[in-house]
Amino acid sequence: MILWLNGNLLTAEEARIDPIDRGFLLGDGVFETIRLQGSRPLHLTQHQARLRDGAALLGIPIGWDDAVLGQAIADVARAAGLAHAAARLTLTRGPAQRGVLPPAEPRPTLLITAGALPPPPPPAHAIIATSTRRNAMSPLSRIKSLNYLDSIIARREATGRSTDEAILLDTRGHLAEATAANLFLLIGDRIVTPPVEDGALPGITRARLLASGLAEEGRLWPEDCARASAAFLTSSLGVRMLARIEDRILNLDHPAFDTVRRWWTLDSKS
Amino acid sequence: MILWLNGNLLTAEEARIDPIDRGFLLGDGVFETIRLQGSRPLHLTQHQARLRDGAALLGIPIGWDDAVLGQAIADVARAAGLAHAAARLTLTRGPAQRGVLPPAEPRPTLLITAGALPPPPPPAHAIIATSTRRNAMSPLSRIKSLNYLDSIIARREATGRSTDEAILLDTRGHLAEATAANLFLLIGDRIVTPPVEDGALPGITRARLLASGLAEEGRLWPEDCARASAAFLTSSLGVRMLARIEDRILNLDHPAFDTVRRWWTLDSKS
Repeated sequence: MILWLNGNLLTAEEARIDPIDRGFLLGDGVFETIRLQGSRPLHLTQHQARLRDGAALLGIPIGWDDAVLGQAIADVARAAGLAHAAARLTLTRGPAQRGVLPPAEPRPTLLITAGALPPPPPPAHAIIATSTRRNAMSPLSRIKSLNYLDSIIARREATGRSTDEAILLDTRGHLAEATAANLFLLIGDRIVTPPVEDGALPGITRARLLASGLAEEGRLWPEDCARASAAFLTSSLGVRMLARIEDRILNLDHPAFDTVRRWWTLDSKS
Repeated sequence: MILWLNGNLLTAEEARIDPIDRGFLLGDGVFETIRLQGSRPLHLTQHQARLRDGAALLGIPIGWDDAVLGQAIADVARAAGLAHAAARLTLTRGPAQRGVLPPAEPRPTLLITAGALPPPPPPAHAIIATSTRRNAMSPLSRIKSLNYLDSIIARREATGRSTDEAILLDTRGHLAEATAANLFLLIGDRIVTPPVEDGALPGITRARLLASGLAEEGRLWPEDCARASAAFLTSSLGVRMLARIEDRILNLDHPAFDTVRRWWTLDSKS
Protein backbone atom coordinates (compact mmCIF):
# COMPACT_ATOMS: atom_id res chain seq x y z
CA MET A 1 0.00 0.00 0.00
CA ILE A 2 1.20 3.49 -0.91
CA LEU A 3 0.15 6.34 1.35
CA TRP A 4 0.79 10.07 1.61
CA LEU A 5 2.19 11.35 4.89
CA ASN A 6 2.99 15.04 5.36
CA GLY A 7 3.90 15.58 1.73
CA ASN A 8 5.64 12.28 1.02
CA LEU A 9 4.40 9.22 -0.86
CA LEU A 10 5.57 6.21 1.16
CA THR A 11 4.95 2.52 1.48
CA ALA A 12 2.91 1.53 4.53
CA GLU A 13 6.07 -0.04 6.01
CA GLU A 14 8.02 3.20 5.63
CA ALA A 15 5.30 5.30 7.23
CA ARG A 16 5.72 5.99 10.93
CA ILE A 17 3.41 7.77 13.32
CA ASP A 18 5.33 9.29 16.21
CA PRO A 19 4.39 7.76 19.61
CA ILE A 20 3.89 11.31 20.92
CA ASP A 21 1.45 12.25 18.15
CA ARG A 22 -1.61 13.80 19.82
CA GLY A 23 -3.81 11.92 17.37
CA PHE A 24 -2.58 8.69 18.94
CA LEU A 25 -2.46 9.93 22.56
CA LEU A 26 -5.62 12.06 22.77
CA GLY A 27 -7.67 11.52 19.61
CA ASP A 28 -6.78 15.12 18.80
CA GLY A 29 -7.80 15.45 15.17
CA VAL A 30 -10.36 15.03 12.40
CA PHE A 31 -10.79 12.84 9.35
CA GLU A 32 -12.70 12.41 6.10
CA THR A 33 -13.68 9.28 4.20
CA ILE A 34 -14.06 9.93 0.48
CA ARG A 35 -15.40 7.63 -2.20
CA LEU A 36 -13.31 7.38 -5.34
CA GLN A 37 -14.32 6.71 -8.93
CA GLY A 38 -11.03 5.35 -10.23
CA SER A 39 -8.63 8.01 -8.97
CA ARG A 40 -11.28 10.77 -8.90
CA PRO A 41 -12.55 11.70 -5.41
CA LEU A 42 -16.30 12.32 -5.21
CA HIS A 43 -17.57 15.62 -3.80
CA LEU A 44 -14.05 16.63 -2.93
CA THR A 45 -14.94 20.30 -2.39
CA GLN A 46 -17.44 19.43 0.33
CA HIS A 47 -15.06 16.99 2.02
CA GLN A 48 -12.25 19.53 2.04
CA ALA A 49 -14.58 22.21 3.41
CA ARG A 50 -15.71 19.89 6.23
CA LEU A 51 -12.11 18.92 7.04
CA ARG A 52 -11.21 22.61 7.28
CA ASP A 53 -14.27 23.40 9.40
CA GLY A 54 -13.36 20.66 11.86
CA ALA A 55 -9.70 21.70 11.95
CA ALA A 56 -10.71 25.33 12.53
CA LEU A 57 -12.97 24.37 15.42
CA LEU A 58 -10.07 22.52 17.04
CA GLY A 59 -7.50 25.16 16.07
CA ILE A 60 -5.39 22.77 13.99
CA PRO A 61 -3.68 24.53 11.07
CA ILE A 62 -3.55 22.73 7.70
CA GLY A 63 -0.32 23.52 5.91
CA TRP A 64 -1.47 22.30 2.50
CA ASP A 65 -3.94 23.89 0.14
CA ASP A 66 -6.87 22.06 -1.40
CA ALA A 67 -5.13 21.62 -4.76
CA VAL A 68 -2.18 19.82 -3.14
CA LEU A 69 -4.50 17.61 -1.12
CA GLY A 70 -6.62 16.81 -4.17
CA GLN A 71 -3.50 15.79 -6.07
CA ALA A 72 -2.28 13.72 -3.12
CA ILE A 73 -5.59 11.83 -2.97
CA ALA A 74 -5.40 11.15 -6.71
CA ASP A 75 -1.78 9.95 -6.38
CA VAL A 76 -2.63 7.56 -3.55
CA ALA A 77 -5.71 6.33 -5.39
CA ARG A 78 -3.74 5.74 -8.59
CA ALA A 79 -1.06 3.82 -6.69
CA ALA A 80 -3.78 1.65 -5.12
CA GLY A 81 -4.96 0.82 -8.64
CA LEU A 82 -8.51 -0.01 -7.58
CA ALA A 83 -11.62 0.65 -9.64
CA HIS A 84 -13.75 1.06 -6.51
CA ALA A 85 -11.90 2.54 -3.58
CA ALA A 86 -12.26 4.89 -0.67
CA ALA A 87 -9.67 7.38 0.57
CA ARG A 88 -9.24 8.53 4.12
CA LEU A 89 -7.66 11.84 5.17
CA THR A 90 -6.57 11.92 8.81
CA LEU A 91 -5.41 15.23 10.29
CA THR A 92 -4.01 15.40 13.82
CA ARG A 93 -2.39 18.14 15.88
CA GLY A 94 0.86 16.17 15.56
CA PRO A 95 3.61 15.35 18.04
CA ALA A 96 3.77 17.37 21.24
CA GLN A 97 4.85 17.21 24.85
CA ARG A 98 2.39 15.75 27.36
CA GLY A 99 -0.69 17.58 28.58
CA VAL A 100 -4.15 18.59 27.45
CA LEU A 101 -3.16 22.10 26.38
CA PRO A 102 -2.19 22.15 22.70
CA PRO A 103 1.29 23.38 21.80
CA ALA A 104 1.53 27.00 20.69
CA GLU A 105 3.11 25.96 17.39
CA PRO A 106 1.71 22.59 16.39
CA ARG A 107 3.29 20.47 13.67
CA PRO A 108 0.18 18.68 12.39
CA THR A 109 0.19 15.21 10.89
CA LEU A 110 -1.76 14.67 7.68
CA LEU A 111 -2.13 11.12 6.42
CA ILE A 112 -3.92 9.99 3.25
CA THR A 113 -4.62 6.33 2.57
CA ALA A 114 -6.80 4.46 0.08
CA GLY A 115 -8.31 1.01 0.26
CA ALA A 116 -10.83 -1.15 -1.55
CA LEU A 117 -14.42 -0.03 -1.26
CA PRO A 118 -16.31 -2.72 0.64
CA PRO A 119 -18.99 -4.42 -1.51
CA PRO A 120 -22.51 -2.99 -1.10
CA PRO A 121 -23.65 -4.42 2.23
CA PRO A 122 -26.95 -6.31 2.52
CA PRO A 123 -29.89 -4.63 4.28
CA ALA A 124 -29.09 -4.22 7.96
CA HIS A 125 -30.82 -5.18 11.17
CA ALA A 126 -30.34 -2.21 13.50
CA ILE A 127 -30.89 -1.81 17.20
CA ILE A 128 -31.34 1.37 19.19
CA ALA A 129 -28.22 1.57 21.35
CA THR A 130 -28.66 1.50 25.10
CA SER A 131 -24.94 1.40 25.88
CA THR A 132 -24.21 5.07 25.14
CA ARG A 133 -25.60 8.34 23.81
CA ARG A 134 -24.48 11.05 21.36
CA ASN A 135 -23.68 14.39 22.98
CA ALA A 136 -25.36 17.08 20.89
CA MET A 137 -24.14 19.67 23.42
CA SER A 138 -20.55 19.07 22.32
CA PRO A 139 -19.38 20.66 19.06
CA LEU A 140 -17.71 17.31 18.36
CA SER A 141 -21.12 15.99 17.31
CA ARG A 142 -20.94 18.37 14.33
CA ILE A 143 -17.43 17.53 13.10
CA LYS A 144 -15.86 14.28 11.99
CA SER A 145 -13.41 14.00 14.85
CA LEU A 146 -11.14 11.11 15.80
CA ASN A 147 -13.14 10.61 19.03
CA TYR A 148 -15.03 7.62 17.74
CA LEU A 149 -15.47 5.49 20.84
CA ASP A 150 -19.18 6.12 21.38
CA SER A 151 -19.82 4.72 17.91
CA ILE A 152 -17.48 1.80 18.58
CA ILE A 153 -19.28 1.00 21.84
CA ALA A 154 -22.67 1.12 20.10
CA ARG A 155 -21.46 -1.06 17.23
CA ARG A 156 -20.10 -3.60 19.71
CA GLU A 157 -23.51 -3.61 21.37
CA ALA A 158 -25.12 -4.33 17.98
CA THR A 159 -22.74 -7.21 17.37
CA GLY A 160 -23.34 -8.53 20.88
CA ARG A 161 -27.06 -8.54 20.13
CA SER A 162 -26.45 -10.40 16.82
CA THR A 163 -27.38 -7.40 14.70
CA ASP A 164 -25.50 -5.24 12.19
CA GLU A 165 -25.90 -1.64 13.21
CA ALA A 166 -26.86 0.62 16.07
CA ILE A 167 -28.82 3.86 16.10
CA LEU A 168 -27.63 6.29 18.75
CA LEU A 169 -29.89 8.61 20.70
CA ASP A 170 -28.74 12.01 21.90
CA THR A 171 -28.69 12.68 25.64
CA ARG A 172 -32.31 13.93 25.52
CA GLY A 173 -33.55 10.78 23.82
CA HIS A 174 -33.92 11.91 20.20
CA LEU A 175 -32.73 9.69 17.36
CA ALA A 176 -29.36 11.02 16.19
CA GLU A 177 -27.63 8.76 13.67
CA ALA A 178 -26.11 5.32 13.14
CA THR A 179 -22.51 4.49 14.14
CA ALA A 180 -20.94 5.81 10.93
CA ALA A 181 -23.90 6.91 8.82
CA ASN A 182 -26.91 9.21 8.87
CA LEU A 183 -30.39 7.77 9.42
CA PHE A 184 -33.46 8.37 7.25
CA LEU A 185 -36.95 7.10 8.09
CA LEU A 186 -39.88 6.96 5.69
CA ILE A 187 -42.90 8.11 7.70
CA GLY A 188 -46.09 8.41 5.68
CA ASP A 189 -44.80 9.90 2.43
CA ARG A 190 -41.96 11.92 4.01
CA ILE A 191 -38.34 10.86 4.26
CA VAL A 192 -37.06 12.39 7.50
CA THR A 193 -33.55 12.62 8.99
CA PRO A 194 -32.61 13.97 12.44
CA PRO A 195 -31.36 17.56 12.64
CA VAL A 196 -27.77 18.40 13.53
CA GLU A 197 -29.05 19.90 16.82
CA ASP A 198 -30.04 16.37 17.84
CA GLY A 199 -26.56 14.95 17.35
CA ALA A 200 -26.57 14.03 13.66
CA LEU A 201 -23.20 14.50 11.96
CA PRO A 202 -23.70 16.87 9.00
CA GLY A 203 -22.93 14.14 6.48
CA ILE A 204 -22.17 15.09 2.90
CA THR A 205 -24.49 12.53 1.30
CA ARG A 206 -27.13 13.65 3.83
CA ALA A 207 -26.68 17.31 2.82
CA ARG A 208 -26.93 16.46 -0.88
CA LEU A 209 -30.03 14.35 -0.36
CA LEU A 210 -31.66 17.16 1.63
CA ALA A 211 -30.72 19.64 -1.11
CA SER A 212 -32.31 17.35 -3.70
CA GLY A 213 -35.67 17.85 -2.02
CA LEU A 214 -36.24 14.11 -1.64
CA ALA A 215 -35.77 14.21 2.14
CA GLU A 216 -36.22 16.68 4.97
CA GLU A 217 -34.92 17.30 8.47
CA GLY A 218 -37.17 16.60 11.41
CA ARG A 219 -36.93 15.62 15.05
CA LEU A 220 -37.33 11.87 15.53
CA TRP A 221 -37.90 9.72 18.61
CA PRO A 222 -37.48 5.97 19.14
CA GLU A 223 -41.28 5.57 18.75
CA ASP A 224 -40.93 6.87 15.19
CA CYS A 225 -39.03 3.70 14.26
CA ALA A 226 -42.20 1.74 14.96
CA ARG A 227 -44.15 4.13 12.66
CA ALA A 228 -41.63 4.00 9.81
CA SER A 229 -42.44 1.92 6.76
CA ALA A 230 -38.88 1.95 5.43
CA ALA A 231 -35.50 3.26 6.51
CA PHE A 232 -31.98 3.64 5.19
CA LEU A 233 -28.54 4.91 6.13
CA THR A 234 -26.26 7.18 4.12
CA SER A 235 -22.52 7.75 4.31
CA SER A 236 -19.91 8.94 1.87
CA LEU A 237 -19.53 5.33 0.79
CA GLY A 238 -23.15 4.77 -0.17
CA VAL A 239 -26.72 4.06 0.85
CA ARG A 240 -27.74 1.05 2.93
CA MET A 241 -31.30 -0.17 3.49
CA LEU A 242 -32.48 -1.19 6.93
CA ALA A 243 -34.43 -4.44 7.03
CA ARG A 244 -35.34 -4.07 10.70
CA ILE A 245 -35.00 -1.62 13.56
CA GLU A 246 -35.34 -3.60 16.78
CA ASP A 247 -38.46 -5.75 16.10
CA ARG A 248 -39.99 -3.49 13.46
CA ILE A 249 -39.78 -5.13 10.05
CA LEU A 250 -39.26 -2.57 7.29
CA ASN A 251 -40.21 -2.54 3.63
CA LEU A 252 -37.21 -3.16 1.37
CA ASP A 253 -39.13 -2.56 -1.87
CA HIS A 254 -40.77 0.76 -1.21
CA PRO A 255 -40.86 2.95 -4.35
CA ALA A 256 -39.51 5.90 -2.36
CA PHE A 257 -36.31 3.99 -1.87
CA ASP A 258 -35.99 3.27 -5.60
CA THR A 259 -36.12 7.02 -6.11
CA VAL A 260 -33.37 7.57 -3.55
CA ARG A 261 -31.23 4.84 -5.06
CA ARG A 262 -31.58 6.35 -8.53
CA TRP A 263 -30.73 9.76 -7.09
CA TRP A 264 -27.64 8.36 -5.40
CA THR A 265 -26.43 6.60 -8.56
CA LEU A 266 -26.72 9.85 -10.51
CA ASP A 267 -25.25 11.97 -7.70
CA SER A 268 -22.22 9.73 -7.35
CA LYS A 269 -21.43 10.30 -11.02
CA SER A 270 -21.69 14.09 -10.78
CA MET B 1 14.00 8.91 25.69
CA ILE B 2 13.56 5.19 26.26
CA LEU B 3 10.06 3.78 25.99
CA TRP B 4 8.40 0.40 26.18
CA LEU B 5 6.31 -0.67 23.20
CA ASN B 6 4.63 -4.08 23.09
CA GLY B 7 7.29 -5.76 25.17
CA ASN B 8 10.37 -3.99 23.80
CA LEU B 9 12.48 -1.21 25.31
CA LEU B 10 13.24 1.18 22.45
CA THR B 11 14.51 4.68 21.86
CA ALA B 12 11.82 7.17 20.85
CA GLU B 13 13.32 7.24 17.35
CA GLU B 14 13.05 3.46 17.00
CA ALA B 15 9.44 3.39 18.15
CA ARG B 16 6.84 3.38 15.40
CA ILE B 17 3.08 3.55 15.64
CA ASP B 18 1.43 1.95 12.63
CA PRO B 19 -0.61 4.41 10.53
CA ILE B 20 -3.52 1.97 10.70
CA ASP B 21 -3.47 1.76 14.52
CA ARG B 22 -7.04 2.33 15.73
CA GLY B 23 -5.68 4.48 18.53
CA PHE B 24 -4.47 6.92 15.90
CA LEU B 25 -7.45 6.61 13.54
CA LEU B 26 -10.38 6.39 15.96
CA GLY B 27 -9.12 7.21 19.47
CA ASP B 28 -9.84 3.54 20.22
CA GLY B 29 -8.12 2.99 23.54
CA VAL B 30 -7.46 4.01 27.13
CA PHE B 31 -4.55 5.41 29.11
CA GLU B 32 -3.21 6.02 32.60
CA THR B 33 -0.92 8.74 33.92
CA ILE B 34 1.06 7.57 36.95
CA ARG B 35 3.26 9.61 39.25
CA LEU B 36 6.66 8.12 40.00
CA GLN B 37 8.86 8.40 43.08
CA GLY B 38 12.19 7.67 41.47
CA SER B 39 11.38 4.50 39.54
CA ARG B 40 8.50 3.50 41.85
CA PRO B 41 4.99 4.08 40.47
CA LEU B 42 2.49 5.45 42.98
CA HIS B 43 -0.77 3.60 43.57
CA LEU B 44 0.07 1.19 40.79
CA THR B 45 -2.59 -1.35 41.79
CA GLN B 46 -5.37 1.21 41.37
CA HIS B 47 -4.01 2.45 38.04
CA GLN B 48 -3.72 -1.07 36.68
CA ALA B 49 -7.24 -1.88 37.86
CA ARG B 50 -8.63 1.22 36.14
CA LEU B 51 -6.72 0.44 32.93
CA ARG B 52 -8.20 -3.07 32.94
CA ASP B 53 -11.71 -1.77 33.69
CA GLY B 54 -11.51 0.62 30.74
CA ALA B 55 -10.08 -2.04 28.45
CA ALA B 56 -12.81 -4.48 29.50
CA LEU B 57 -15.53 -1.93 28.77
CA LEU B 58 -14.11 -1.45 25.26
CA GLY B 59 -13.35 -5.16 24.78
CA ILE B 60 -9.61 -4.64 24.33
CA PRO B 61 -7.57 -7.58 25.61
CA ILE B 62 -4.33 -6.85 27.51
CA GLY B 63 -1.74 -9.48 26.75
CA TRP B 64 0.53 -8.61 29.69
CA ASP B 65 -0.02 -9.25 33.35
CA ASP B 66 0.32 -6.60 36.02
CA ALA B 67 3.76 -7.79 37.13
CA VAL B 68 5.17 -7.40 33.63
CA LEU B 69 3.61 -3.95 33.27
CA GLY B 70 4.90 -2.87 36.68
CA GLN B 71 8.40 -3.98 35.71
CA ALA B 72 8.10 -2.20 32.36
CA ILE B 73 7.11 1.06 34.08
CA ALA B 74 10.07 0.74 36.45
CA ASP B 75 12.43 0.05 33.52
CA VAL B 76 11.23 3.08 31.57
CA ALA B 77 11.38 5.24 34.69
CA ARG B 78 14.91 4.08 35.50
CA ALA B 79 16.06 4.80 31.95
CA ALA B 80 14.57 8.28 32.20
CA GLY B 81 16.70 8.81 35.30
CA LEU B 82 14.44 11.50 36.75
CA ALA B 83 13.79 12.03 40.44
CA HIS B 84 10.31 13.41 39.75
CA ALA B 85 8.63 11.88 36.78
CA ALA B 86 5.31 10.69 35.45
CA ALA B 87 4.67 7.60 33.38
CA ARG B 88 1.94 7.17 30.84
CA LEU B 89 0.48 3.82 29.72
CA THR B 90 -1.42 3.99 26.45
CA LEU B 91 -3.41 0.95 25.33
CA THR B 92 -5.10 0.87 21.93
CA ARG B 93 -6.95 -1.79 19.97
CA GLY B 94 -3.98 -1.80 17.59
CA PRO B 95 -3.73 -1.93 13.80
CA ALA B 96 -6.80 -3.03 11.85
CA GLN B 97 -8.57 -2.65 8.55
CA ARG B 98 -10.89 0.32 8.12
CA GLY B 99 -14.32 0.56 9.73
CA VAL B 100 -15.95 1.17 13.07
CA LEU B 101 -16.42 -2.51 13.91
CA PRO B 102 -13.42 -3.81 15.88
CA PRO B 103 -11.51 -6.75 14.43
CA ALA B 104 -12.41 -10.17 15.83
CA GLU B 105 -8.80 -10.77 16.86
CA PRO B 106 -7.22 -7.46 17.79
CA ARG B 107 -3.47 -7.05 18.21
CA PRO B 108 -3.45 -4.26 20.82
CA THR B 109 -0.72 -1.66 21.12
CA LEU B 110 0.65 -0.93 24.59
CA LEU B 111 3.04 1.98 24.97
CA ILE B 112 4.74 3.12 28.18
CA THR B 113 6.62 6.42 28.35
CA ALA B 114 8.01 8.54 31.16
CA GLY B 115 8.78 12.22 31.31
CA ALA B 116 9.66 14.90 33.81
CA LEU B 117 6.94 15.78 36.28
CA PRO B 118 5.93 19.38 35.63
CA PRO B 119 6.77 21.69 38.59
CA PRO B 120 3.85 22.30 40.98
CA PRO B 121 1.67 24.77 39.09
CA PRO B 122 0.60 28.06 40.72
CA PRO B 123 -3.04 28.46 41.80
CA ALA B 124 -5.28 28.51 38.75
CA HIS B 125 -7.92 30.86 37.46
CA ALA B 126 -10.68 28.62 36.11
CA ILE B 127 -13.68 29.35 33.96
CA ILE B 128 -16.84 27.31 33.55
CA ALA B 129 -16.67 26.07 29.97
CA THR B 130 -19.42 27.16 27.59
CA SER B 131 -17.84 25.56 24.52
CA THR B 132 -18.74 21.96 25.33
CA ARG B 133 -20.23 19.59 27.93
CA ARG B 134 -19.30 16.24 29.47
CA ASN B 135 -21.59 13.37 28.50
CA ALA B 136 -22.43 11.48 31.69
CA MET B 137 -24.75 9.24 29.63
CA SER B 138 -21.74 7.74 27.87
CA PRO B 139 -19.68 5.12 29.72
CA LEU B 140 -16.65 6.98 28.36
CA SER B 141 -17.15 9.55 31.13
CA ARG B 142 -16.23 6.81 33.62
CA ILE B 143 -13.05 5.52 31.94
CA LYS B 144 -9.84 7.26 30.97
CA SER B 145 -10.28 6.90 27.23
CA LEU B 146 -8.25 8.42 24.41
CA ASN B 147 -11.27 10.52 23.37
CA TYR B 148 -9.97 13.70 24.92
CA LEU B 149 -11.25 16.37 22.56
CA ASP B 150 -13.97 17.79 24.81
CA SER B 151 -11.28 18.54 27.40
CA ILE B 152 -9.00 20.00 24.73
CA ILE B 153 -11.82 22.25 23.46
CA ALA B 154 -12.56 23.46 27.01
CA ARG B 155 -8.88 24.08 27.75
CA ARG B 156 -8.54 26.09 24.53
CA GLU B 157 -11.55 28.13 25.65
CA ALA B 158 -9.79 28.81 28.99
CA THR B 159 -6.65 29.93 27.18
CA GLY B 160 -8.69 32.09 24.83
CA ARG B 161 -10.23 33.77 27.85
CA SER B 162 -6.75 34.32 29.39
CA THR B 163 -7.32 31.80 32.17
CA ASP B 164 -5.65 28.52 33.13
CA GLU B 165 -8.32 25.91 33.45
CA ALA B 166 -11.89 25.07 32.56
CA ILE B 167 -14.58 23.31 34.56
CA LEU B 168 -16.92 21.25 32.43
CA LEU B 169 -20.63 20.81 33.06
CA ASP B 170 -22.47 17.63 32.17
CA THR B 171 -25.30 17.84 29.64
CA ARG B 172 -27.82 18.54 32.43
CA GLY B 173 -25.81 21.45 33.80
CA HIS B 174 -24.12 19.91 36.84
CA LEU B 175 -20.47 20.58 37.57
CA ALA B 176 -18.48 17.54 36.40
CA GLU B 177 -14.71 18.08 36.53
CA ALA B 178 -11.83 20.11 35.11
CA THR B 179 -10.11 19.26 31.82
CA ALA B 180 -7.73 16.68 33.32
CA ALA B 181 -8.48 16.75 37.05
CA ASN B 182 -11.30 16.32 39.53
CA LEU B 183 -12.88 19.35 41.17
CA PHE B 184 -13.40 19.90 44.91
CA LEU B 185 -15.27 22.87 46.39
CA LEU B 186 -15.17 23.92 50.04
CA ILE B 187 -18.77 24.88 50.88
CA GLY B 188 -19.31 25.75 54.52
CA ASP B 189 -17.15 23.18 56.28
CA ARG B 190 -17.64 20.42 53.70
CA ILE B 191 -15.28 19.56 50.83
CA VAL B 192 -17.51 18.33 48.02
CA THR B 193 -16.70 16.73 44.66
CA PRO B 194 -19.18 15.87 41.88
CA PRO B 195 -20.39 12.27 41.66
CA VAL B 196 -19.45 9.98 38.80
CA GLU B 197 -23.11 10.04 37.66
CA ASP B 198 -22.60 13.73 36.84
CA GLY B 199 -19.66 13.12 34.53
CA ALA B 200 -16.72 13.10 36.95
CA LEU B 201 -13.97 10.68 35.99
CA PRO B 202 -13.39 8.29 38.91
CA GLY B 203 -9.93 9.69 39.60
CA ILE B 204 -7.57 7.75 41.80
CA THR B 205 -6.50 10.71 43.96
CA ARG B 206 -10.21 11.60 44.18
CA ALA B 207 -11.08 8.08 45.38
CA ARG B 208 -8.30 8.13 47.98
CA LEU B 209 -9.32 11.55 49.25
CA LEU B 210 -12.95 10.39 49.54
CA ALA B 211 -11.79 7.27 51.38
CA SER B 212 -9.79 9.43 53.80
CA GLY B 213 -13.01 11.03 54.97
CA LEU B 214 -11.74 14.55 54.28
CA ALA B 215 -14.09 15.03 51.31
CA GLU B 216 -17.46 13.76 50.16
CA GLU B 217 -19.41 13.33 46.95
CA GLY B 218 -22.29 15.68 46.24
CA ARG B 219 -24.13 17.16 43.30
CA LEU B 220 -22.84 20.62 42.43
CA TRP B 221 -24.18 23.39 40.18
CA PRO B 222 -22.45 26.44 38.71
CA GLU B 223 -24.07 28.57 41.46
CA ASP B 224 -22.11 26.55 44.01
CA CYS B 225 -18.89 28.08 42.71
CA ALA B 226 -20.14 31.46 43.94
CA ARG B 227 -20.83 29.92 47.37
CA ALA B 228 -17.45 28.17 47.67
CA SER B 229 -14.81 29.69 49.92
CA ALA B 230 -11.98 27.60 48.46
CA ALA B 231 -11.50 25.06 45.70
CA PHE B 232 -8.87 22.72 44.34
CA LEU B 233 -8.22 20.16 41.65
CA THR B 234 -6.74 16.68 42.00
CA SER B 235 -5.09 14.42 39.47
CA SER B 236 -2.60 11.60 39.70
CA LEU B 237 0.13 14.22 39.42
CA GLY B 238 -0.94 16.27 42.43
CA VAL B 239 -3.25 18.84 43.95
CA ARG B 240 -3.73 22.34 42.53
CA MET B 241 -5.46 25.23 44.26
CA LEU B 242 -7.94 27.41 42.42
CA ALA B 243 -7.47 31.13 42.97
CA ARG B 244 -10.63 32.05 41.08
CA ILE B 245 -13.57 30.43 39.35
CA GLU B 246 -14.98 32.95 36.89
CA ASP B 247 -15.16 36.17 38.98
CA ARG B 248 -15.35 34.44 42.36
CA ILE B 249 -12.11 35.00 44.29
CA LEU B 250 -11.22 32.01 46.43
CA ASN B 251 -9.30 31.66 49.66
CA LEU B 252 -5.82 30.22 49.10
CA ASP B 253 -4.98 29.97 52.81
CA HIS B 254 -7.98 28.11 54.16
CA PRO B 255 -6.96 25.65 56.92
CA ALA B 256 -9.03 22.91 55.24
CA PHE B 257 -6.66 23.04 52.32
CA ASP B 258 -3.62 22.71 54.58
CA THR B 259 -5.17 19.50 55.83
CA VAL B 260 -5.67 18.23 52.29
CA ARG B 261 -2.15 19.17 51.34
CA ARG B 262 -0.73 17.31 54.34
CA TRP B 263 -2.91 14.33 53.49
CA TRP B 264 -1.65 14.34 49.91
CA THR B 265 2.00 14.57 50.93
CA LEU B 266 1.55 11.56 53.20
CA ASP B 267 -0.58 9.66 50.70
CA SER B 268 1.95 10.12 47.91
CA LYS B 269 4.58 8.46 50.09
CA SER B 270 2.42 5.44 50.89
